[in-house]
Amino acid sequence: MTDILSRSHAEALDRDDPLGSFPDRFVAADKDLLYLDGNSLGRLPRSTGDRLARVVAEEWGGGLVRSWSSWIELSRRVGDLIGTEVIGAAPGEVLVADSTTVNLYKLAAAALDARPGRSVVVSSADEFPTDRYVLQGLCAARGLTLRDAAADLDAGVSVAGVRDALDESVALVVLSHVAYRSGALADLPAITAAAHEVGALVLWDLSHSGGSVPAGLSAAGADLAVGCTYKYLNGGPGAPAYLYVRTGLQEELRQPIWGWFGAADQFAMGERYVPAPGIDRFLVGTPPVLSLVGAEEGVRLLAEAGIDRLRAKGMAMTSYLVELADAWLAPLGFRLASPRDPARRGAHISLEHPAAWQVCQALLDRGVVPDYRTPDRLRLGPAPLTTRFIEVHDAMATIRDLVAAGTHRDYPEEIARVT
Amino acid sequence: MTDILSRSHAEALDRDDPLGSFPDRFVAADKDLLYLDGNSLGRLPRSTGDRLARVVAEEWGGGLVRSWSSWIELSRRVGDLIGTEVIGAAPGEVLVADSTTVNLYKLAAAALDARPGRSVVVSSADEFPTDRYVLQGLCAARGLTLRDAAADLDAGVSVAGVRDALDESVALVVLSHVAYRSGALADLPAITAAAHEVGALVLWDLSHSGGSVPAGLSAAGADLAVGCTYKYLNGGPGAPAYLYVRTGLQEELRQPIWGWFGAADQFAMGERYVPAPGIDRFLVGTPPVLSLVGAEEGVRLLAEAGIDRLRAKGMAMTSYLVELADAWLAPLGFRLASPRDPARRGAHISLEHPAAWQVCQALLDRGVVPDYRTPDRLRLGPAPLTTRFIEVHDAMATIRDLVAAGTHRDYPEEIARVT
Repeated sequence: MTDILSRSHAEALDRDDPLGSFPDRFVAADKDLLYLDGNSLGRLPRSTGDRLARVVAEEWGGGLVRSWSSWIELSRRVGDLIGTEVIGAAPGEVLVADSTTVNLYKLAAAALDARPGRSVVVSSADEFPTDRYVLQGLCAARGLTLRDAAADLDAGVSVAGVRDALDESVALVVLSHVAYRSGALADLPAITAAAHEVGALVLWDLSHSGGSVPAGLSAAGADLAVGCTYKYLNGGPGAPAYLYVRTGLQEELRQPIWGWFGAADQFAMGERYVPAPGIDRFLVGTPPVLSLVGAEEGVRLLAEAGIDRLRAKGMAMTSYLVELADAWLAPLGFRLASPRDPARRGAHISLEHPAAWQVCQALLDRGVVPDYRTPDRLRLGPAPLTTRFIEVHDAMATIRDLVAAGTHRDYPEEIARVT
Repeated sequence: MTDILSRSHAEALDRDDPLGSFPDRFVAADKDLLYLDGNSLGRLPRSTGDRLARVVAEEWGGGLVRSWSSWIELSRRVGDLIGTEVIGAAPGEVLVADSTTVNLYKLAAAALDARPGRSVVVSSADEFPTDRYVLQGLCAARGLTLRDAAADLDAGVSVAGVRDALDESVALVVLSHVAYRSGALADLPAITAAAHEVGALVLWDLSHSGGSVPAGLSAAGADLAVGCTYKYLNGGPGAPAYLYVRTGLQEELRQPIWGWFGAADQFAMGERYVPAPGIDRFLVGTPPVLSLVGAEEGVRLLAEAGIDRLRAKGMAMTSYLVELADAWLAPLGFRLASPRDPARRGAHISLEHPAAWQVCQALLDRGVVPDYRTPDRLRLGPAPLTTRFIEVHDAMATIRDLVAAGTHRDYPEEIARVT
């Protein structure tokens, strides 16, 4: 019987991994780097550099303005790829454009307009800050109340917790599918159904689940969603975000930023704004083509791997992380700050430790890239598409040795400055 | 005495051009292409491909999430470059982020919040459609009136025309510095002063002037401005837009999309949104880094050329265009649909012709890239930084020969579909 803590066990897990060839399709500029922050910024696909060089030289440099005949389709084409291959939506339900925050604003505002007379937005105190900020802004502008469903820093929101916050005054529920800190996975279908029971709309932030956990939006009857393409989708830094609007809801909604890309006949340059039919009305202005092309390359690789296989590997990797943490790090004062059941979490976990910030800095100096999250969490995100089990093993061994030796105490206790 | 219509005269103009070496610093994939649409999409600087390849391979591929320590400064750094070198603003007054339309929405909404109790927004019926659409949306949401200052399709808005539309009920004036169709140049200082007299704020769209006409924002005491980086700034397709807010106004304004990049302490991930001090509060979400890097490369070249030399060349080029149009195209039924005085226009002109659409299609088939604008305008935009006089000469000769031969009549009369 193999020792599950041994390096050879990690090697065996990699040999048996049906997605084991995918990490080779990404650039590893530094072979020794142990990268456990794929849920902040995904790795660079080998194909992306060439594709971008071609788009720059041939389409921009050569085609110039004439290339808009193909660029104009990018938002929709990449959206459909994400919709059908990654988040369980139908064609014509997803677009890629603008940032996650801008998309959240557009959809939340449109949803609130569609539920006049209702005075409450439900979210949770543990939502990602930018989501909360957007909702705070909308509530302040409209005189609405932002109500927090009960949420546990480690376990996330429960169906019961959300249900307790729901009543007929609720216009909109905004929650993350996977919590950014703990990785806790919300019960998307059940929470969607509960919100619908009181007549509220639901907007899901898929930033931390898209590409690692199937969202099954259509199956759940989900109304609205946003998510980013630079984490598990490997689209590159600041690649534009996606938004989803259920087909049956599209004609009913009208987003607040009326721009020419969302107008019914963009180049007729009409006098008055008439929203485009379907999903296109959620576009605004000219999308950043180079960054969109990066997103397309990333999503293509992800689609090739398949979201179900990615989910299986994500659960296996976090389970492996937890096994190593139990054996090596619990004795050093670390506590698992994520759900223990792999079915209740996404593809990252957090470990609580009073010196998490210092440990994080010490790791960065040793070629291990984790993430720090307030107040005292070391967040570990091995991306199912790009991370090997051996990387997880070696990173965890580095944490163990470093903390056992007390080396992290050489680093100043500082306020968080990690993206 | 040289014949000013001769090809050798164009060659002489190029020889005497102090910016004559700049076109060589841009990619000319097709040596024979005559590109007069630099005011839709600027050319590709030779340096941009290499810079992007480095950012992709080294900063994304190698540095991964750690590169955010430098990327985080891009919006501000490129903004300051545009502010100080291109549009006459002070450091800390300009940012690059989001699309022009989203920026217009943010600044217009912030301005309206700062003028409560005033019920009118002034613009012109000839404003670029996306600007009008944004204002229509904001007025609809807030129960305000959108009032059109008198505007002539060819001559643009006049100070007197704007003044007639102003009174104490006006919260905000939104106008283009250079009109997208005719190239007419608005009197930015005088209109700004007139708006201030009635207590209104002014938001300038610099998309068609930025990089070809000095805006002199600080000197004019201009309040707000937006503009795009993919025209004269050569930032690449969909490169993010810039926004300007006068220093003295920044603390007073609060834009409607509250996101983490605009928060006072972004990575403290605080509970409540507190806007960042200064210009940073007008940021929202993660900017598209690759497209931002493209913008920086383009703006650097422009800054090297210098906005005053670019303005001089722009006036010389449009004057040359007008001379050729008078001599060659007027007899063929073309009419100058732009101001005749170079001081009253930007760097492009439009020619009215009943078959403008067909002429445009015929030209595209012959390696000449102009632009079509409704209802019957052939728009010619030789970019001062990237276009040679000889290109203007040859393009105009092609138009002359084509229309004289009636070849354009072989093309279908079709609805506009040109970006």
